[in-house]
Amino acid sequence: MRTVWLNGEFLPETEAKVPIFDRGLLFAQGVYEVTPVIDGHFCNWPHHSARLTRSMALARITDDTDWPPILDELIRRNGLTEGRIYLQVTGGAPADRDFLSPVEPVPATRFAFTQAAAVVDQPKAQEGMRIVLHPEGRWALRSAKTTQLLYAVLAKEAAREAGADDAWLVDDGMVTEGTSANAHIIDSRGVLVSHPVDHGVLPGISRLSVLPLARDMGLTVEERAFSVGELFAAREAFITSATTVVMPVVEVDGRAIGDGRPGPLTGELRQRYIGRLRAS
Amino acid sequence: MRTVWLNGEFLPETEAKVPIFDRGLLFAQGVYEVTPVIDGHFCNWPHHSARLTRSMALARITDDTDWPPILDELIRRNGLTEGRIYLQVTGGAPADRDFLSPVEPVPATRFAFTQAAAVVDQPKAQEGMRIVLHPEGRWALRSAKTTQLLYAVLAKEAAREAGADDAWLVDDGMVTEGTSANAHIIDSRGVLVSHPVDHGVLPGISRLSVLPLARDMGLTVEERAFSVGELFAAREAFITSATTVVMPVVEVDGRAIGDGRPGPLTGELRQRYIGRLRAS
Repeated sequence: MRTVWLNGEFLPETEAKVPIFDRGLLFAQGVYEVTPVIDGHFCNWPHHSARLTRSMALARITDDTDWPPILDELIRRNGLTEGRIYLQVTGGAPADRDFLSPVEPVPATRFAFTQAAAVVDQPKAQEGMRIVLHPEGRWALRSAKTTQLLYAVLAKEAAREAGADDAWLVDDGMVTEGTSANAHIIDSRGVLVSHPVDHGVLPGISRLSVLPLARDMGLTVEERAFSVGELFAAREAFITSATTVVMPVVEVDGRAIGDGRPGPLTGELRQRYIGRLRAS
Repeated sequence: MRTVWLNGEFLPETEAKVPIFDRGLLFAQGVYEVTPVIDGHFCNWPHHSARLTRSMALARITDDTDWPPILDELIRRNGLTEGRIYLQVTGGAPADRDFLSPVEPVPATRFAFTQAAAVVDQPKAQEGMRIVLHPEGRWALRSAKTTQLLYAVLAKEAAREAGADDAWLVDDGMVTEGTSANAHIIDSRGVLVSHPVDHGVLPGISRLSVLPLARDMGLTVEERAFSVGELFAAREAFITSATTVVMPVVEVDGRAIGDGRPGPLTGELRQRYIGRLRAS
């Protein structure tokens, strides 16, 4: 049985519970982070920490938990070598429900847990992912990593029912991002095109690391939205996220991207990024 | 101490807790209803029940809880005569976090609690509400009553900081609704204008009852979006919700609506609707 962490305590996973009045449960006033774990270490903490701080500010959550010792201890207690750590902070649990935060602040609710999973050897990295396009319908404040996630759940479930691995979201003909990953293409000219993270998409930590690696490989990188037409004409397509790291997309709405196999530049980026995670 | 209800059990309010893996907490896969309670009875159940069923279908939550006996018992145990009952249903608590619902379904999480509050004698009904306009930024699926509520929380808190009672949301120059209430005006011609509930706003149960009462009073009712300009030129403005029933708005962004006092038609609608709730 996993050991998880909740509000200062390490607990068996089945015993970690929050009140029904938690603002995370009633209002989705919650923010979270997911970090990859490789070789028994969690990765990219300074970036995750900075984004968590920004998400909390937007969601009006105040908390100063010192996460790294907690994450280290969770990894140790669960003997985790590869996978990820999930952590969430909510607006806490007042004594009653009110949209407005209590005038006398309540402590934030904080919890974290490990998930064992392959990061380096994922079969989809060899096969490539098949995705479907889905209308963008999420809220406006997507640059914060909040638990406003039902739309992503519904899009992923629609993708599963269509026999696909995931969905990419399309707003007025332009791809915003995946349901839980940033979306990128190597376009018909060989240029890496990636939606800017100033608005409309999550500033992904993997993306933040991968774009410089692409420049190191000599690729030109354009940070701008790309259209569905550009996607279908692209040589390669891929996603970046803490869970998938870098993962090729080979098919969109049943049409092959490039030659329908994982792209070589995507594969190279994946290897370089995993190497960088291991070295750090 | 209140008695609340959680997954089949009546519990002291401080003992009702859900696992950190609840899909309501991790993904905001939750839907809810709030019914007014007057004279010790909850109101409008057939409408709330029908909307709950629609919200669950959209959120992909399956549950067949027979709510009325539970709500009756909660009212009885808590000696509630006036206020409201809140109930919520989530996607349940699988053993681990995954955006996709588990292939082997888990039971929905269900809970309910009472809130004592004045419904008939609310001072704001005499004073009127002051509201601010706020950009619409919620997700697209607003006709379902889900816990995607952080945007409403943020707008309400911005209103509080501006010294106002609440916010109305504005999309491309047109008012959609309040943060937790439908928005209406008696326009400069004396016509009641109310955003249609086919999309973009919640199909409010109070609205559903109040519009026919307005027609009974001889008012013409137009179900269409109204602009900010129409709002400022209106004779009266008001909201409808389970919590406020019918509540006059007397000021928007610091500008008086009509003569800056609660409108007579709004007052008449409030009295008629409360009378109808009492009689049912």
